[in-house]
Amino acid sequence: MSKYQYETIKVQVFSDGVAHVELNRPKRLNAFNERLVTDIGKCFTDIGADSDIRVIVLSGSGRMFTAGLDLSENVLLKEQGDMDVARKAFNLQEHIRWFQGAMTSLEKCPTPIIVAMHNGVFGAGVDLCTAGDIRYATKDAFFSVKEVDVGLAADVGTLQRLPKVVGNASLVRELCYTCRTMYADEAYRCGLVNKVLDTKEQLMEEAFKTAKLIASKSPVAVVSTKHLLNYSRDHSVDEGLAYTAVWNSAMLMTEDIPKSIEAFVTKKSATYSKL
Amino acid sequence: MSKYQYETIKVQVFSDGVAHVELNRPKRLNAFNERLVTDIGKCFTDIGADSDIRVIVLSGSGRMFTAGLDLSENVLLKEQGDMDVARKAFNLQEHIRWFQGAMTSLEKCPTPIIVAMHNGVFGAGVDLCTAGDIRYATKDAFFSVKEVDVGLAADVGTLQRLPKVVGNASLVRELCYTCRTMYADEAYRCGLVNKVLDTKEQLMEEAFKTAKLIASKSPVAVVSTKHLLNYSRDHSVDEGLAYTAVWNSAMLMTEDIPKSIEAFVTKKSATYSKL
Amino acid sequence: MSKYQYETIKVQVFSDGVAHVELNRPKRLNAFNERLVTDIGKCFTDIGADSDIRVIVLSGSGRMFTAGLDLSENVLLKEQGDMDVARKAFNLQEHIRWFQGAMTSLEKCPTPIIVAMHNGVFGAGVDLCTAGDIRYATKDAFFSVKEVDVGLAADVGTLQRLPKVVGNASLVRELCYTCRTMYADEAYRCGLVNKVLDTKEQLMEEAFKTAKLIASKSPVAVVSTKHLLNYSRDHSVDEGLAYTAVWNSAMLMTEDIPKSIEAFVTKKSATYSKL
Amino acid sequence: MSKYQYETIKVQVFSDGVAHVELNRPKRLNAFNERLVTDIGKCFTDIGADSDIRVIVLSGSGRMFTAGLDLSENVLLKEQGDMDVARKAFNLQEHIRWFQGAMTSLEKCPTPIIVAMHNGVFGAGVDLCTAGDIRYATKDAFFSVKEVDVGLAADVGTLQRLPKVVGNASLVRELCYTCRTMYADEAYRCGLVNKVLDTKEQLMEEAFKTAKLIASKSPVAVVSTKHLLNYSRDHSVDEGLAYTAVWNSAMLMTEDIPKSIEAFVTKKSATYSKL
Amino acid sequence: MSKYQYETIKVQVFSDGVAHVELNRPKRLNAFNERLVTDIGKCFTDIGADSDIRVIVLSGSGRMFTAGLDLSENVLLKEQGDMDVARKAFNLQEHIRWFQGAMTSLEKCPTPIIVAMHNGVFGAGVDLCTAGDIRYATKDAFFSVKEVDVGLAADVGTLQRLPKVVGNASLVRELCYTCRTMYADEAYRCGLVNKVLDTKEQLMEEAFKTAKLIASKSPVAVVSTKHLLNYSRDHSVDEGLAYTAVWNSAMLMTEDIPKSIEAFVTKKSATYSKL
Amino acid sequence: MSKYQYETIKVQVFSDGVAHVELNRPKRLNAFNERLVTDIGKCFTDIGADSDIRVIVLSGSGRMFTAGLDLSENVLLKEQGDMDVARKAFNLQEHIRWFQGAMTSLEKCPTPIIVAMHNGVFGAGVDLCTAGDIRYATKDAFFSVKEVDVGLAADVGTLQRLPKVVGNASLVRELCYTCRTMYADEAYRCGLVNKVLDTKEQLMEEAFKTAKLIASKSPVAVVSTKHLLNYSRDHSVDEGLAYTAVWNSAMLMTEDIPKSIEAFVTKKSATYSKL
Repeated sequence: MSKYQYETIKVQVFSDGVAHVELNRPKRLNAFNERLVTDIGKCFTDIGADSDIRVIVLSGSGRMFTAGLDLSENVLLKEQGDMDVARKAFNLQEHIRWFQGAMTSLEKCPTPIIVAMHNGVFGAGVDLCTAGDIRYATKDAFFSVKEVDVGLAADVGTLQRLPKVVGNASLVRELCYTCRTMYADEAYRCGLVNKVLDTKEQLMEEAFKTAKLIASKSPVAVVSTKHLLNYSRDHSVDEGLAYTAVWNSAMLMTEDIPKSIEAFVTKKSATYSKL
Repeated sequence: MSKYQYETIKVQVFSDGVAHVELNRPKRLNAFNERLVTDIGKCFTDIGADSDIRVIVLSGSGRMFTAGLDLSENVLLKEQGDMDVARKAFNLQEHIRWFQGAMTSLEKCPTPIIVAMHNGVFGAGVDLCTAGDIRYATKDAFFSVKEVDVGLAADVGTLQRLPKVVGNASLVRELCYTCRTMYADEAYRCGLVNKVLDTKEQLMEEAFKTAKLIASKSPVAVVSTKHLLNYSRDHSVDEGLAYTAVWNSAMLMTEDIPKSIEAFVTKKSATYSKL
Repeated sequence: MSKYQYETIKVQVFSDGVAHVELNRPKRLNAFNERLVTDIGKCFTDIGADSDIRVIVLSGSGRMFTAGLDLSENVLLKEQGDMDVARKAFNLQEHIRWFQGAMTSLEKCPTPIIVAMHNGVFGAGVDLCTAGDIRYATKDAFFSVKEVDVGLAADVGTLQRLPKVVGNASLVRELCYTCRTMYADEAYRCGLVNKVLDTKEQLMEEAFKTAKLIASKSPVAVVSTKHLLNYSRDHSVDEGLAYTAVWNSAMLMTEDIPKSIEAFVTKKSATYSKL
Repeated sequence: MSKYQYETIKVQVFSDGVAHVELNRPKRLNAFNERLVTDIGKCFTDIGADSDIRVIVLSGSGRMFTAGLDLSENVLLKEQGDMDVARKAFNLQEHIRWFQGAMTSLEKCPTPIIVAMHNGVFGAGVDLCTAGDIRYATKDAFFSVKEVDVGLAADVGTLQRLPKVVGNASLVRELCYTCRTMYADEAYRCGLVNKVLDTKEQLMEEAFKTAKLIASKSPVAVVSTKHLLNYSRDHSVDEGLAYTAVWNSAMLMTEDIPKSIEAFVTKKSATYSKL
Repeated sequence: MSKYQYETIKVQVFSDGVAHVELNRPKRLNAFNERLVTDIGKCFTDIGADSDIRVIVLSGSGRMFTAGLDLSENVLLKEQGDMDVARKAFNLQEHIRWFQGAMTSLEKCPTPIIVAMHNGVFGAGVDLCTAGDIRYATKDAFFSVKEVDVGLAADVGTLQRLPKVVGNASLVRELCYTCRTMYADEAYRCGLVNKVLDTKEQLMEEAFKTAKLIASKSPVAVVSTKHLLNYSRDHSVDEGLAYTAVWNSAMLMTEDIPKSIEAFVTKKSATYSKL
Repeated sequence: MSKYQYETIKVQVFSDGVAHVELNRPKRLNAFNERLVTDIGKCFTDIGADSDIRVIVLSGSGRMFTAGLDLSENVLLKEQGDMDVARKAFNLQEHIRWFQGAMTSLEKCPTPIIVAMHNGVFGAGVDLCTAGDIRYATKDAFFSVKEVDVGLAADVGTLQRLPKVVGNASLVRELCYTCRTMYADEAYRCGLVNKVLDTKEQLMEEAFKTAKLIASKSPVAVVSTKHLLNYSRDHSVDEGLAYTAVWNSAMLMTEDIPKSIEAFVTKKSATYSKL
């Protein structure tokens, strides 16, 4: 049995360093309730600290990836009793930051995350998948930035990450203002997803194939690459380069470099120790 | 008669919260003279403050969207008389900021703007359309970043916004250095425009269809979404999230959320009061 | 004979203001050794200061554009003798900054650079080409972000520039984590290259055609455009506009503007003096 | 009669290029009502555009500099009728930005401003004076960051500017949390004011003496210095230097430099033309 | 008995909303071992979430405030066994971030913190106190930025916060490079501490007097002021103002404002409900 | 004879790791001509790369520290012949950046610099000294930000660094706008200098005493401290801490830490190897 147990998330860890994380509220279409949000934050923090795990595949169990917010539970607004508006706002901030933190745990997790999506990806599902690294989908997948239809602006990541993930600002704004559905082929063309597969089985197979490939590489190199890509997204090129020089001044002393070169020269595969 | 009257711009306000703004110097191919620049700044500031208007469609009357700068009038350089170079430069700065301010009024306008373009979009027209939110075009549309051909670097928005609007830096630089024409199909492929329609009639129909859809949504949600997308473009993801948490701590107290959920549950459409 | 002589780089300067810079270690597949890195930094600094040169075409001689790092020479790590780890790290920082500086010399070079690539573009070749302005390739070109396979995170530009050059974050991360090969057609679709030509001859012809076109324009306008595009990539839109207003307050006083307008009116071509 | 007429502000323009701006609601102790806020914004925008005015002295008429917010008028909150909380917040933002804009008009005004303060300087008075350039006070002056005592955090400048104006963070926080009074001697020691004079007459004399001195200098040099100090406060040293190089590349072509050097050599005073 | 129990920290909560937090390893001169670092992070996070506590006084029990790092325990370096340098560096980063996080918990704590220091304040004690809000000291207090004497650059806050807390860069660098002792009078003159008292009793009395005063004010106003001062320290004035407008658009709807004005008019003291 | 030979600068290197750098144009009162600017940039770059030198003392030979710009030579403006204004501006930018680079070489130099000033410190001398680390002066020293008197805004560092070096914005602006003289006592009170000595002999003695003290410390610790102070000045506290964690993750592996602790325990002095 996996040592990672959560009420709404299922985790399997494989011997090749790949972990499979599944949103696991299939009866509620993996909708986000308070439990799921908490579990996401906890899961990616736990797994991110486990150096035996080198790559994560994230998918949804059951009919679709996720239906978005669970409107039957009040995850959006915390019950606050009889406070004045300022105190309510102060406490709501904390609540939003808690939700944001869960989503951002995918980005802060040092391990690369491949998000494999099938069927519906609604609302918070878009926030979630844009916080991952690589996105694949089935051809029946469809995406909807649903927040405006619920009367609010998306506040847990989509408005920040979606425009930095795809290079088409006109499309991003159309999707965010209209809440219209975008199907897999358009998602592929605009670059939200990077591969489209026919069935969920093929999707998972492809995701695990990529995951295994990455897991076979130097963890110093892979983890550094994720960290530096995140840093560089949010800084100027000059700042990114300066930070990289400091980061790599330690990392270049790794044994993985001579190991890698040896493997290249001898045409054998290298085995790298964990972080 | 519309309460919005400008010499070079025509405004129609419809009962569904959509306004139609038309560049209206058809004899001069909607070229930018001082009057048009001033009218643009004034128009989008006025309309942006009118909470009865929820979405704007911007197009050009006559033969093309715009021929760019009106070279027959000296809009580029202000007449300055007999000053030394430093004083001229100081006053030119003011002049450039005035022109930039007119273009940026589209971005600062809280209301989403759909830019519907047909035929020629030259020079300042590219600066203008990239300051809008969503861009549609006819299949006969063609774009040209024309400034280098007039001997200057574009200074009223194209060099700032075009690379953040499309995700192809190589193409952007080619367009900006060579002033070559880009036709609608390439503009669609690179994401400058998001839909291409056969005729101007179809273009306007599609633009108004999208506009009406957006106008039917919660104005709290829509206006917040535009504001947060603008903010997030210019900040790191963490900064964008922190700002969003503060912004939404007030906005989540809106009546539009229960209204929207009620509408969703009862499958009726909601009516939202204006901002 | 060209006045620009480097051991590993060949430079030809043409009368129309175009220079051809060729990586010239064909026996080593233009792999990066210490000499080539030094020569790149020196070459683009020298040429960037030469106002007779208005556009640069960069290509590789021999079988491919570049095989990346020359693993037969220790360009990655400087020999450091018997120092403690902190001192080694301090000195490695200097070494990384030296390598970064060579790549960044393309970006700091005020002159636009068209990178024409054929066959293999490995590792440091991706860092190099993303520091240029416009990228063309042959249809047999293929790209590989190879650093992770050598046990390190790319540290001389790819992680900073590639995501700002193409608008598909999922693809960028897949390429960087897996080191997989991307062929010319995918490179074209994602926008890494802007044109794909059948043969190397056609590639060079097209690159020079674009180069000549740019070289015929006002150098004040072209150089300003490159400078402002670089600045704007790393700043908010408002910051970019403010900086541009100051920059152009001097540049708008150029004689090139009346010259250009005159040429436009008289339908003759203008001749601009050098910077 | 001065061409600058405002209901709550008195302006005198002197022949030496110095303008005297007086807060002029003495019966209400120059308290900030909506009229005064509007007049401040308008006054400094008007005067800042008048190149005949080279330095401004700002003081308060009557018993004290200012009593802060006029609690008898609701300047803090705009009347909003029956809106939901989100709409109220949206409209309050506009209101706060309007008030901030008035204060910031001192900073955006290209002309240096010497603030001469006597007796009480409460609440919004601290916001106001920190947006000026140079601060002098009488020995009976006393300062109080009063906002917390009214139930709010200062939102029109004090929390942004006071810590960048004085170099004592512990004191700043004590003043802001406790609303305690700080007298002229402590204000001098911590650097909020730069000179302390015995009487209001001496204060005004000293302020005008400094003003005349500054007004006698090159306006290109003075206006550039204010602009660059403002820019540099909000940017890194490297960014400040880069911006300055661009700014001065035009400004160094001024005739004021040879004039100044000539004056220095011949020991005569120079006369500079206006901006 | 207090509900806040930590092994190395003593907490007392008083009925007036003031909490007293004491570093409590007197036999080890309150030196920082792993337990104390963990307790600091936990204590200020716990207390910061307790809206019954409105102000915190932080002091040290026994002979001095703190002797700095406990060199008898290896808090600086985590035991790491037999890893390569890159893996050690990666894990050391985590360790440093954990230590930084404890110090930064004072800054992230929404409640104002008055640091009352007597006798020695060494090394990590300077990092700690600069993360608080207001600093008072006894006249026998002395400060030493001791890290360089242990062979490292301070890495948990002093180099970031000390220069933003005092306005004398020359002194800051002298203290940091030489590790020399600075006595209370110099600390007062440079603004590191804001009040100097004769004895520890008087110090605590003064600290609690200020604490009670702050605790009697509107918690909406006080907490907002701390939050906005922190934000504004790290942003430009324009950014700080924009953020403040959004923040206060909710906070100005507090009942504390009419309560405060009522109290002012009736000259009675107001009672504010907790956050 | 010293291996560092410059025409206008005299360098002595002592066995204890201290170098003495003297501005050496005494007949021209150490005024800045093109040679001196070039020599400054070269000198601090050369010495900064020499790990035998651990601290630098910078002073002026002859009557005063420096008279500022040498007006008899045209260091301000490069001769440009018959170019149009835009081309002149473009070339002037290069010229200003060259001058700025020389001043910034003190800041980029990894070695701490103590600036010891006597008598006059005019114009560029203020730019120069604020780029150093620690400033001492004789009691007869006097400072003047002289640029406005020559008709320009200071453009080689004073406007960027002076306000970050002293914590009194009102004074800084008064000095910059009026060009008035500030004597040693005021310079001490505002924190521009950190110690005032009676005579030049005592000044040099004190500067060398501090220099020797710093030179006796771990160079890993000292150089890291300077680097991190520079970084942190220009970044938010959070950014500064994050960068520090990466930097120190390598530096904490130094042998200097156990050496230092051993020295502390055994009360002997440690000897550190060079960088």
